[in-house]
Amino acid sequence: MPQVLVEISARHIHLAEKDLFTLFGNGYSLKKQKDLSQSGEFAAKETIAIVNNDKKLVFRVVGPLRKETQVELSVSDCILLKIKPSLKLSGDLSGSSKATLVGPNGQLRLKQGVIVAKRHLHIDLTTAKKWKLKNGQKISVLTKGDRALEFKNIIVRIGDFQTRLHLDTDEANAAGLKNNDKVYLQI
Amino acid sequence: MPQVLVEISARHIHLAEKDLFTLFGNGYSLKKQKDLSQSGEFAAKETIAIVNNDKKLVFRVVGPLRKETQVELSVSDCILLKIKPSLKLSGDLSGSSKATLVGPNGQLRLKQGVIVAKRHLHIDLTTAKKWKLKNGQKISVLTKGDRALEFKNIIVRIGDFQTRLHLDTDEANAAGLKNNDKVYLQI
Repeated sequence: MPQVLVEISARHIHLAEKDLFTLFGNGYSLKKQKDLSQSGEFAAKETIAIVNNDKKLVFRVVGPLRKETQVELSVSDCILLKIKPSLKLSGDLSGSSKATLVGPNGQLRLKQGVIVAKRHLHIDLTTAKKWKLKNGQKISVLTKGDRALEFKNIIVRIGDFQTRLHLDTDEANAAGLKNNDKVYLQI
Repeated sequence: MPQVLVEISARHIHLAEKDLFTLFGNGYSLKKQKDLSQSGEFAAKETIAIVNNDKKLVFRVVGPLRKETQVELSVSDCILLKIKPSLKLSGDLSGSSKATLVGPNGQLRLKQGVIVAKRHLHIDLTTAKKWKLKNGQKISVLTKGDRALEFKNIIVRIGDFQTRLHLDTDEANAAGLKNNDKVYLQI
């Protein structure tokens, strides 16, 4: 059973330039806090809040800027904020959920772009060939420990990636997993 | 594959009498909001808050009173409140986590009693005999849908129960499950 490492996505937001300017001010640039495992991506120093009535959660901004603003959060976050969860692959925003974003310079109503990310395996081409995995294929992964489980319907995404199983916080917590824990491909 | 229904435990608290009196006032009695599936248990009208610095979550009180106060919450809740998660079977509180509880009449520091409940199957004796399940045995359960997975290490608890798989919100959300969804015992 090939092993891979887990990378957990906590709630975060990718911003389009126009939304960055609304939230942080015209001409604003993100400040890098640290690089992420996915090539070119970074956690910014900036955060925004999503608010709904008296509920509020803080979201780390992830750079660089994108064409469309995309919020990723867990179903637990959705319940807290009373947002309808939309389970989607990253980048597939049509018909996804709405939210009100608040930054230090202003706020905006996002009409779509709020998703719960489908779990997926990022894998580089060489390793994918070695393990005979195809882009878009669904696989299963076994975890160990007190909360052991087997995740099914994990989508394989081949690219210029470090090989990592990407889970959200609900999934990682349900399995008792931490970042860089080992899990086992059922292939 | 025998089917059972899912019952999801959202964050809640069972109170000992002395803690009820501290939080709600001397001689206070819980008011029933609705009966729960487990015989004799009920969701009370009362809620308390757990607070930690600027973080706060509201917990439904579940009656009747118990000998010891027990808080059940998810790992996502623990992260939000910055409480160390203790994965325990309900009732096993030794060495579990601490928290500050706030009620309308006062507050108290709980020195232990905060747990993340281990997933378990409640089952009546007749059904357990039919399915050849023993008390304390560990089994696996398969779920269906976009977030399908197989939960392992589910502890069988035989008693005067409705037959239900008890999950916390992280587990239910990770599997895309709602209350009363069907899941499949791997026996």
